[in-house]
Amino acid sequence: MTVTTQPKPTSAMPDTAIYERRESAVRSYARAMPRQFNRAEGVWMHDNQGGRYLDFLSGCSTLNYGHNHPVLKAALVDYIAGDGITHGLDLHTDAKADFLATLEDVILRPRGLDYRAMFTGPTGTNAVEAAIKLARKITGRELVIAFTNGFHGMTLGALACTGNAAKRGGAGVPLSHVAHEPYDGYHGPDVDTADLLERRLSDPSSGLDAPAAILVETVQGEGGLNAASPQWLRRIAEIARRHGALMIVDDIQAGCGRTGNFFSFEGMGFTPDIVTMAKSLSGMGLPFALTLFRPELDQWAPGEHNGTFRGNNHAFVTATAALRHFWGDAQFEQDIARRGALLERRLDAMAAEHGLSTRGRGMMRGIDVGSGEVAQTITAACFAQGLIIETSGAHDEIVKVLAPLVIEDAVLSAGLDILEESIRSALTVTYGVAAE
Amino acid sequence: MTVTTQPKPTSAMPDTAIYERRESAVRSYARAMPRQFNRAEGVWMHDNQGGRYLDFLSGCSTLNYGHNHPVLKAALVDYIAGDGITHGLDLHTDAKADFLATLEDVILRPRGLDYRAMFTGPTGTNAVEAAIKLARKITGRELVIAFTNGFHGMTLGALACTGNAAKRGGAGVPLSHVAHEPYDGYHGPDVDTADLLERRLSDPSSGLDAPAAILVETVQGEGGLNAASPQWLRRIAEIARRHGALMIVDDIQAGCGRTGNFFSFEGMGFTPDIVTMAKSLSGMGLPFALTLFRPELDQWAPGEHNGTFRGNNHAFVTATAALRHFWGDAQFEQDIARRGALLERRLDAMAAEHGLSTRGRGMMRGIDVGSGEVAQTITAACFAQGLIIETSGAHDEIVKVLAPLVIEDAVLSAGLDILEESIRSALTVTYGVAAE
Amino acid sequence: MTVTTQPKPTSAMPDTAIYERRESAVRSYARAMPRQFNRAEGVWMHDNQGGRYLDFLSGCSTLNYGHNHPVLKAALVDYIAGDGITHGLDLHTDAKADFLATLEDVILRPRGLDYRAMFTGPTGTNAVEAAIKLARKITGRELVIAFTNGFHGMTLGALACTGNAAKRGGAGVPLSHVAHEPYDGYHGPDVDTADLLERRLSDPSSGLDAPAAILVETVQGEGGLNAASPQWLRRIAEIARRHGALMIVDDIQAGCGRTGNFFSFEGMGFTPDIVTMAKSLSGMGLPFALTLFRPELDQWAPGEHNGTFRGNNHAFVTATAALRHFWGDAQFEQDIARRGALLERRLDAMAAEHGLSTRGRGMMRGIDVGSGEVAQTITAACFAQGLIIETSGAHDEIVKVLAPLVIEDAVLSAGLDILEESIRSALTVTYGVAAE
Amino acid sequence: MTVTTQPKPTSAMPDTAIYERRESAVRSYARAMPRQFNRAEGVWMHDNQGGRYLDFLSGCSTLNYGHNHPVLKAALVDYIAGDGITHGLDLHTDAKADFLATLEDVILRPRGLDYRAMFTGPTGTNAVEAAIKLARKITGRELVIAFTNGFHGMTLGALACTGNAAKRGGAGVPLSHVAHEPYDGYHGPDVDTADLLERRLSDPSSGLDAPAAILVETVQGEGGLNAASPQWLRRIAEIARRHGALMIVDDIQAGCGRTGNFFSFEGMGFTPDIVTMAKSLSGMGLPFALTLFRPELDQWAPGEHNGTFRGNNHAFVTATAALRHFWGDAQFEQDIARRGALLERRLDAMAAEHGLSTRGRGMMRGIDVGSGEVAQTITAACFAQGLIIETSGAHDEIVKVLAPLVIEDAVLSAGLDILEESIRSALTVTYGVAAE
Repeated sequence: MTVTTQPKPTSAMPDTAIYERRESAVRSYARAMPRQFNRAEGVWMHDNQGGRYLDFLSGCSTLNYGHNHPVLKAALVDYIAGDGITHGLDLHTDAKADFLATLEDVILRPRGLDYRAMFTGPTGTNAVEAAIKLARKITGRELVIAFTNGFHGMTLGALACTGNAAKRGGAGVPLSHVAHEPYDGYHGPDVDTADLLERRLSDPSSGLDAPAAILVETVQGEGGLNAASPQWLRRIAEIARRHGALMIVDDIQAGCGRTGNFFSFEGMGFTPDIVTMAKSLSGMGLPFALTLFRPELDQWAPGEHNGTFRGNNHAFVTATAALRHFWGDAQFEQDIARRGALLERRLDAMAAEHGLSTRGRGMMRGIDVGSGEVAQTITAACFAQGLIIETSGAHDEIVKVLAPLVIEDAVLSAGLDILEESIRSALTVTYGVAAE
Repeated sequence: MTVTTQPKPTSAMPDTAIYERRESAVRSYARAMPRQFNRAEGVWMHDNQGGRYLDFLSGCSTLNYGHNHPVLKAALVDYIAGDGITHGLDLHTDAKADFLATLEDVILRPRGLDYRAMFTGPTGTNAVEAAIKLARKITGRELVIAFTNGFHGMTLGALACTGNAAKRGGAGVPLSHVAHEPYDGYHGPDVDTADLLERRLSDPSSGLDAPAAILVETVQGEGGLNAASPQWLRRIAEIARRHGALMIVDDIQAGCGRTGNFFSFEGMGFTPDIVTMAKSLSGMGLPFALTLFRPELDQWAPGEHNGTFRGNNHAFVTATAALRHFWGDAQFEQDIARRGALLERRLDAMAAEHGLSTRGRGMMRGIDVGSGEVAQTITAACFAQGLIIETSGAHDEIVKVLAPLVIEDAVLSAGLDILEESIRSALTVTYGVAAE
Repeated sequence: MTVTTQPKPTSAMPDTAIYERRESAVRSYARAMPRQFNRAEGVWMHDNQGGRYLDFLSGCSTLNYGHNHPVLKAALVDYIAGDGITHGLDLHTDAKADFLATLEDVILRPRGLDYRAMFTGPTGTNAVEAAIKLARKITGRELVIAFTNGFHGMTLGALACTGNAAKRGGAGVPLSHVAHEPYDGYHGPDVDTADLLERRLSDPSSGLDAPAAILVETVQGEGGLNAASPQWLRRIAEIARRHGALMIVDDIQAGCGRTGNFFSFEGMGFTPDIVTMAKSLSGMGLPFALTLFRPELDQWAPGEHNGTFRGNNHAFVTATAALRHFWGDAQFEQDIARRGALLERRLDAMAAEHGLSTRGRGMMRGIDVGSGEVAQTITAACFAQGLIIETSGAHDEIVKVLAPLVIEDAVLSAGLDILEESIRSALTVTYGVAAE
Repeated sequence: MTVTTQPKPTSAMPDTAIYERRESAVRSYARAMPRQFNRAEGVWMHDNQGGRYLDFLSGCSTLNYGHNHPVLKAALVDYIAGDGITHGLDLHTDAKADFLATLEDVILRPRGLDYRAMFTGPTGTNAVEAAIKLARKITGRELVIAFTNGFHGMTLGALACTGNAAKRGGAGVPLSHVAHEPYDGYHGPDVDTADLLERRLSDPSSGLDAPAAILVETVQGEGGLNAASPQWLRRIAEIARRHGALMIVDDIQAGCGRTGNFFSFEGMGFTPDIVTMAKSLSGMGLPFALTLFRPELDQWAPGEHNGTFRGNNHAFVTATAALRHFWGDAQFEQDIARRGALLERRLDAMAAEHGLSTRGRGMMRGIDVGSGEVAQTITAACFAQGLIIETSGAHDEIVKVLAPLVIEDAVLSAGLDILEESIRSALTVTYGVAAE
């Protein structure tokens, strides 16, 4: 197979009148990438004017296996053609049974994990809402400890756990029952923020109430690709246990291989009580979310948390196919490791060239370009070259690379070339302007 | 076409070990209907032991057009086969543009409605969260007025608007910023609850703060199929306007034709400021939700409320096909009207036979059998005859009929025969026991 | 003793520069009564320009025994002269022991009541905060049910129970964990609001959570002198018991004889679980508050609720003297009954003359003059004649008579003459203006 | 005058039946000091069995001028004898005018401070509630930043600002709208907690919302006598200003001379926006509280925050006398400085002897004896010798000396001798036991 490595963007703007007339102003990505897309496969998206774009955004890590992977696509088309159950609330279906059995065989058992699966409404925020509900129910406590720069969703319970002020401000009511403590490295290399947390929880006059849960991302996706160290995460797990709180790892963005393994916490020496998953779980971008927890924690009453679309059978089908295809042996993890190393080398080099720093882990990495304005200049330049890439961080100052994990090494390199060049022009231009 | 009218249930229990081992105890419907389903078309669901079940639940009104409608299915398979965009965050796609244009042409323009569409996370609860966020943002107020027996979702913001104590109890934290006022008829026929609300809102010492929104279902699906009168709804709309609050109609269950028209409030003489939709919107049971609002209210900042799956393109495709196929002319509404009348006659007769009362409107009707125990006896008897049917209401005392709207009249009659007989046995048995 | 019955107001305005320069704009009564008072005894207040004013406000029922009653004054001066403990936190003192023993002998035992006394911070709002804390602690529930037009204080917990929008608005944060239900008569004579409450509490889908307490005033002082019927209060007590909630009577304004007996609920056939008292409890206007509760409810840990001034020994001294002097025999209750009847007759006559209605019970009565503007015209006219009188109600539309309970009948009549004349002029003038 | 320097305790236990029968179990100090007190003057308290106790508690800094100071006592007795207004809500009285003028002349003007005075309900917690209400009203924000180990009162708004878990737990509802940040030195000498706060407030993704106010004690009384450095407090003031928050100094315990000057923040190079005062403000232990703020902040509507006892005229009288007597010249501040130095030397010596550390500033100092058990052994031993002394801190591990500021040096020394000896025995005994 010949690998196509070069994007071919179009410059003409499509007609957007229908969006302006009928779609809410809340839309965001469409503003920075004003094309109308009509087709996608693998790492490529196509617009309706013949353009081809390399996708380094991957639906914010929802398309780890690329767009419309042929194996997943075939499984889904077969299922639909055979009138498989599409919607069945939480009724037992062949698709659900297959998914649960595959999850057990391919993921849980080889990793020695014993979790029960709760199919929440098929969005990440819903999985988080279910996780913190369960933690509050079990502990009888109300406070959840989340972290600076954490992002966990937009419904009121998950939004309270989210750090971003603009998102929080949308609530229109005060967001309660959550405290945000400093994440690993938040106060610089000399302050161990696990120590700070331990001290506050051990002090009956700290004003920090006993928590139901500690909710943490191992790498903060929206918060700027901050990667916590295994030591720190282990400390947090110990602190949770000692203080009677449940440890919840929100693996919605960092899981499903993004950081190198299926779960982002593998090999770190601790096991979360609860894990939330979504994004790449269905494999093909279909809505799907999962809250996993230790069997002893499964104290839900029937229907205590429910949702119309909690059994998205199309997603069961593609998720099952994805688990089997990618996670049945070690090949995929080796590919991710190699590509992650390539990505790391290239980003480090770019950072070194401009005196910048990099962030992240595995195939979830970015470069801190200092400001949201510079970052936007860079991503706009990339897009003009046919590279779809976005930013994250408190000030949108991190240019993040979330390429599909299945990307060919050559294509990854080609995309990084575009990024490298765009950074160079942006910073040169910026410095140039600044120097005048 | 020969209409099959008779279910053919199986009695053997399938192997459920995988669910017991790996699925959370939170599952609910699967407990009352312990079969493993593997195929469905139209009004029929099939289990993997050869059984055939008539579906009077329709995914709680998610399958108004039945299972896997051939027109929708064909559109979706074509789209997938052509590598149409599956996941694209909120990027412009052909599928999205088609949906918006069709919504405008087929639904909004003929009804003289001018709404903008916000694609929230694809669950009803997310659409409600977005609606109340928007109302709070625009009014600068925090209180939402919801109603007794209202059901609006399970994430923290929507759950606060939900009346059901068991669902609310799951929150584990107090649910704030919402007041529940009595719904139409709540205090019996002699008390006009709109008057009660008006009085409280007009009284600066009532303790009821000025509301951001009044959130109402025109027929309360989960709350017991209570149907508000047009007069009462109009009063509520006027009260909202007079007191500077936005009126939100939650049309997630009652919309998409369930009560007779596309929107449940059509022809009632008022226009909601905000409408939430989900369930049958995609037509095929795919996760999809929408918050509609007057253009002047579209004061969102880009990305202020977002979600990974907010642009579920598969759902755009099936929703567009459904709007075109069913709502392009008056035929479907006429069919619903006729079937709704048939349903009403039959239920009224059953109620009269046993001194019971009926509830609801259009094809969203039920019968109050007095207690959850009796209702469960009836639905279990129906299921043994191959009829999938469920309950709602504060005590699960309402047996509800939510048949697909596309059901053939003869099949509807056949299903109602089963229900009629099951009620008869249940009440006879119950009385018999009670008499001992 | 010759009874002076006529006020002698001064018309010259005193110098208020120091207040404008140094006192917060939050002051309120001083604006309507711009005199500088320097002396008071019995029912009379004197200003520093020689004026004498008849006090029909009594510190909002804080001076039921009049200003500086000689018996109380003598007890206090003796105590101070003898270097009695002034401040001792909650240490045992002779003054405290005397108060407790007198409360037991004079009040509790003769009424067959078995209460423990908690000395909270010496303000009514603090007594209410302690009461609802205790109810929440004991029941493990969070919601408190209060009533429309209820007033319970200004600190955040008590303010949440208060109905008045202007006071609530001062909070600057949403006031949570309280629901305001309609008080007796709120929805007119045809709606039994106890039925409404019972229905909501019995309905698991009403959205009204199970309450920790029902907090009620038997007569709503600030809320407009609405007097609940004994039947309604008994119903509320039964509803509280049936639903596992504690019944709290806030007797801060209606207690200490204001409505005829020491407690406002005497003889009504129910016993509150918790009673809050303040205002006239010290007898002389000194800060003092008390939360009484059944011994079984005394589950406080030491110091769990405390306060620097919780043992105001000066108030113990005057309160003890007041209990002994006024409540040792039946004379005082007979006096109140006679004066209350006189007040009722006179107010009814004024109301009849102008087609108005009266409110209240015992010596806690008022007349609804239709609007706050009219009421203010009346009270200003009274003040110009030397009568201190104020308003209450949601719109300040109730002119309220809160004369000292010790007022001579002739003086009460003289004050009511001034009120009668002021109403007559105000309404004539108002009608005259309106007719133009 | 001959100075009596030796206490004379009694050992017989008084009859406490009336307390057990009628007073709530919430009482605390009375348990550790089971005597019945009947008289007090200066630094001495007397019990009703002839005992005499040296008071190193001073009503938790409420009796800075000692018990029943003759000047204050005379002023109060004269006022009462002359039928001065005792209770007048917020009406203008001679006593109030005198107080305001004296506050202006003696305190504000010499210090170049321009504050308005708000007479809140006469408890410290009420002054704090008023302060945070005002800050929220003015800024339109909801969050208040308080500090670890802070103590601000027991009503719901102030309690949310309090750090102590046992006190917080009493609330029975979650305490919201407050974040507790680490106080000066909380994370040891190497972590500048003002930096931590600055970083979180400057970071839009920290999860810490923009605050209405920063509420701080300069020395944390109940929290363990932690004294913030002037540099840190200045930083906090700058941070507040930069982030649009009001700085509130809670000077309820540390003010009125306790730390050396009238206000505890004098000479530190910043001026709080709002100051709360109570405790020693009346001088004689009468309930009195004050919220001071810059005139521009005086945006209260009339009566927006009120309270029955907000104008405690007796307290105006004694407070005026105290301001004139103690603060008219520099003598008192010099006395405090000298006594504070003596106290510091003696405590440092005791600490050095046992390898312990001291805390505090001025006449508000203590010694950390390592555990609440040891501290209680020490205070019990002191009490047995006639010395009233108490503990504070998260674990009650700080033995605190809050002697009246007017104490003669020789008496202070005598009391410290008792403390020194009690520490010695307690630690020897403790070690002895530990060594076995």
